[in-house]
Amino acid sequence: MVYVLGIDGGGTKTVCLLIDETGNILSRGQAGSSNYQTGGIDSAKNAIETAINQAISIFLDHKNYNNILIQGLGIGLAGVGRKEDFNVIQNLVEQVKTNSNLSINWELTTNSTVIKSDSMIALVGGLGHQVGIVAIAGTGSQIFGQNSQGKTKRVGGWGYLLGDEGSGYYIAISGLKAALKSHDGRLGSTQLISAFKHHLNLDNLESLIEVVYRRGWTVSQIANLAKIVDEVARKGDEIANQIINTAIEELVFATKIAIDSLFEPNESVEIVTIGGVFQGMNNFRLKFIESLNQIAPTARLILPRYEPAYGAGILALNALGYFPVNTGLDETQTDPSTNLLN
Amino acid sequence: MVYVLGIDGGGTKTVCLLIDETGNILSRGQAGSSNYQTGGIDSAKNAIETAINQAISIFLDHKNYNNILIQGLGIGLAGVGRKEDFNVIQNLVEQVKTNSNLSINWELTTNSTVIKSDSMIALVGGLGHQVGIVAIAGTGSQIFGQNSQGKTKRVGGWGYLLGDEGSGYYIAISGLKAALKSHDGRLGSTQLISAFKHHLNLDNLESLIEVVYRRGWTVSQIANLAKIVDEVARKGDEIANQIINTAIEELVFATKIAIDSLFEPNESVEIVTIGGVFQGMNNFRLKFIESLNQIAPTARLILPRYEPAYGAGILALNALGYFPVNTGLDETQTDPSTNLLN
Repeated sequence: MVYVLGIDGGGTKTVCLLIDETGNILSRGQAGSSNYQTGGIDSAKNAIETAINQAISIFLDHKNYNNILIQGLGIGLAGVGRKEDFNVIQNLVEQVKTNSNLSINWELTTNSTVIKSDSMIALVGGLGHQVGIVAIAGTGSQIFGQNSQGKTKRVGGWGYLLGDEGSGYYIAISGLKAALKSHDGRLGSTQLISAFKHHLNLDNLESLIEVVYRRGWTVSQIANLAKIVDEVARKGDEIANQIINTAIEELVFATKIAIDSLFEPNESVEIVTIGGVFQGMNNFRLKFIESLNQIAPTARLILPRYEPAYGAGILALNALGYFPVNTGLDETQTDPSTNLLN
Repeated sequence: MVYVLGIDGGGTKTVCLLIDETGNILSRGQAGSSNYQTGGIDSAKNAIETAINQAISIFLDHKNYNNILIQGLGIGLAGVGRKEDFNVIQNLVEQVKTNSNLSINWELTTNSTVIKSDSMIALVGGLGHQVGIVAIAGTGSQIFGQNSQGKTKRVGGWGYLLGDEGSGYYIAISGLKAALKSHDGRLGSTQLISAFKHHLNLDNLESLIEVVYRRGWTVSQIANLAKIVDEVARKGDEIANQIINTAIEELVFATKIAIDSLFEPNESVEIVTIGGVFQGMNNFRLKFIESLNQIAPTARLILPRYEPAYGAGILALNALGYFPVNTGLDETQTDPSTNLLN
């Protein structure tokens, strides 16, 4: 048996999967945020070790083993595209390997320690293979793709201040701006005003300043207001609908740019959609598909086959020479949760 | 002699002017930020007392007096439109009045203690009287006006996340977004990319993420990048020019809304422009005037007659029944500095 760990070091949670060489997920651990850029490197290291420890302990208890040999480790984190950050994470992984509390015998080579961006593991996990595009729209947004030559392309993903067009934050802020412009008399009337006032329990719209600036709302708290824009749009409000449609068009356009820069015209491309905006919002994904297929008819939209941590594990297995599952043509496993903890 | 204090409690500096009933400025004091929302109430109180103490000391030393009777106090601060904030400032003023180190005998009534928004004192100082419009475009932006019936109207000024269209921050962020979209392939080529890289000393545009998010840049540090967009526009770059023109149109439109909601059609309106975007940027103010006069031909643009602290002092004098200077029809005093410390 060959065992690898696949780790998704995210901003809200850290997931670790223990996977064997046939691609079976043997156990799963989860901990808090491992965003070292906001929370610091020690806190990230703790979260990663906690997730690993949980996954390993479940397996060892179940098998009545004392320890386990790990031959591959895949990990994905935001920001590792920069060399400085890559070095930070490499150093962090070295520290984790020396932690004697983990009941692990490590047998990792440089080759079998795979450190990648969060978008790369989302791509590989979402597709179940390495070639195609992932369209992410949650709090932030990003389009990321890779072709069969290993060339990658990122579009967007510049964060809430500099971009993230089409994201939850983008939709929420566009809705708030539209409500305030309407309040000023710079835009026609919209139900967004009453909807925000009601949802945030505000006497008047001026108090938005209090809410957004002084209460120290996080980017994801603001992004959560996207659902208000969606609700108002669903009731037929024209301004809210324009915001939703603009968000869709931004994502469609960004996806088209990624397709064109990686794939031949008429080449079939799988595109996996990930994130709360695609999942939670009324017809958003459907409209995205319709609009994208008008300009990219060979794009084939799928739901995530696995979670990003599985993508990290797959990358580690591939590095060891194992190509266990899913060439990308099997859509039977659309719900990643069904394959966990078996 | 009747003496009043006019205080401008700003986010970068606090200014206090000592003014007599004829409108003469007798002395001037200056201290650091009195933005209590970011720096806390104690720090704001210190800044205000320091500015007052400086203004008073200069005057007392010059006259060889031991103390002075102050009968009016005007103060303008951001955010006092909200009742809670108004109460906070009123309380702060009460504390200042009990400070025995200030060599002041206070003789203030509720009526002669005038607490107003920063935009109101900018309006009155900028115009030298109370009726007209102030168009502010610095780090942030706001249009604020008052008519002869005392009705006021604010347009914009919702802060960097929720609005401030046409501000330095707006121009800078629009420039950064355009550079990144161009980098992604979502927008045509623009000199903004090389200009930002050169100015910020970046090897690649990806490092903008490091600069904007991780170095903890303030809003005004980001807003300072507006000058890069302006420089690139001046060299003929189409995308940079579009950003500048959109900023101008946003300010023109907001000003038009304020004019229409306060004044009769064809009524002559004075509009004072304030802030670094109007002052520092190439032809910005000229283009603003041209564009505004196309839709509001009776709008008459002026440069600030006095600084905001003088506006605060004027309001205190008016409250005491003194209407010393400047009905708003005299444009001879366009440089406020010439009238200081005489």
